[in-house]
Amino acid sequence: MAAEDSSAPTRIMVAVNESTIKGYPHASISSRGAFDWTLSKIVRTNTSGFKLLFLHVQVPDEDGFDDMDSIYASPEDFKTMKRRDKIRGLHLLEYFVNHCHEIGVACEAWIKIGDPKEVICHEATRVQPDFLVLGSRGLGPFQKVFVGTVSEFCVKHADCPVIAIKRDASENPQDPVDD
Amino acid sequence: MAAEDSSAPTRIMVAVNESTIKGYPHASISSRGAFDWTLSKIVRTNTSGFKLLFLHVQVPDEDGFDDMDSIYASPEDFKTMKRRDKIRGLHLLEYFVNHCHEIGVACEAWIKIGDPKEVICHEATRVQPDFLVLGSRGLGPFQKVFVGTVSEFCVKHADCPVIAIKRDASENPQDPVDD
Repeated sequence: MAAEDSSAPTRIMVAVNESTIKGYPHASISSRGAFDWTLSKIVRTNTSGFKLLFLHVQVPDEDGFDDMDSIYASPEDFKTMKRRDKIRGLHLLEYFVNHCHEIGVACEAWIKIGDPKEVICHEATRVQPDFLVLGSRGLGPFQKVFVGTVSEFCVKHADCPVIAIKRDASENPQDPVDD
Repeated sequence: MAAEDSSAPTRIMVAVNESTIKGYPHASISSRGAFDWTLSKIVRTNTSGFKLLFLHVQVPDEDGFDDMDSIYASPEDFKTMKRRDKIRGLHLLEYFVNHCHEIGVACEAWIKIGDPKEVICHEATRVQPDFLVLGSRGLGPFQKVFVGTVSEFCVKHADCPVIAIKRDASENPQDPVDD
């Protein structure tokens, strides 16, 4: 048992998203990497000294590609779709919350909708974590032009310290944009 | 007493420098801020779980302003000057090492000479810390153009995760370039 910390736990916000290949409920390689890194390098055995705050930002499905085959006949259909998206997001967060629960680390998790980089910065201002951990795909300069990086934006604009954790090279999929 | 961590301690490299106003042996406001932040938010009571690696990069005194009144009559004079610089750097590191010793956190400290941003990245590659903590003066975009920021460079180029800790606004001197 670790000695009790007298002060309030360090609040670490971790932004998580789903795999670009496998989709919900699978966490992206970089989200899992950032989470595992936080536990093994920061929290370590001091489970009572930290609280993890998981934010998942859902991107509105603007081109509706995933729902090409759906038929929308009533307002209810759209509600169903939104409800389904929310359930998918909850399944993603379940992975992180369950793991924290197993090892005894306090946590909270929530979902927001919007542009991830903007929402993450907005939530950092609102929630005021001690710092923010972001998984990063470790893209090269050429790939960044097309994909952009949430972490670069947040390092510059978030109201709190930010640490970006690049994926292990060994975990890179064939196309590094996949995650 | 904290529970013993079974794995090797997390190695945190902290780059430190002297105050731009007070000079040696005084640590800059942002170095002290980054150090205090690391202890209170990361190490907390888990003193055996972490090892701090303090790097101080000395900038060669190119214009020799500090030594305007010195007279160099022999090669020995230059050696004396270099020795004096080294001693000043050691006094700076003493502050951090003493503090770690008092609270029982393992540490190492060393001095390198060169361009801080280049040397910090080089040493990060050589030493392979788990992450790097940098103090930052939190300059605005206008000031950055003239001063540049070591932290921005290291976030982009260092081989390990980097977290930049901005000074508390309350600690900002009248001119934020002073530190």
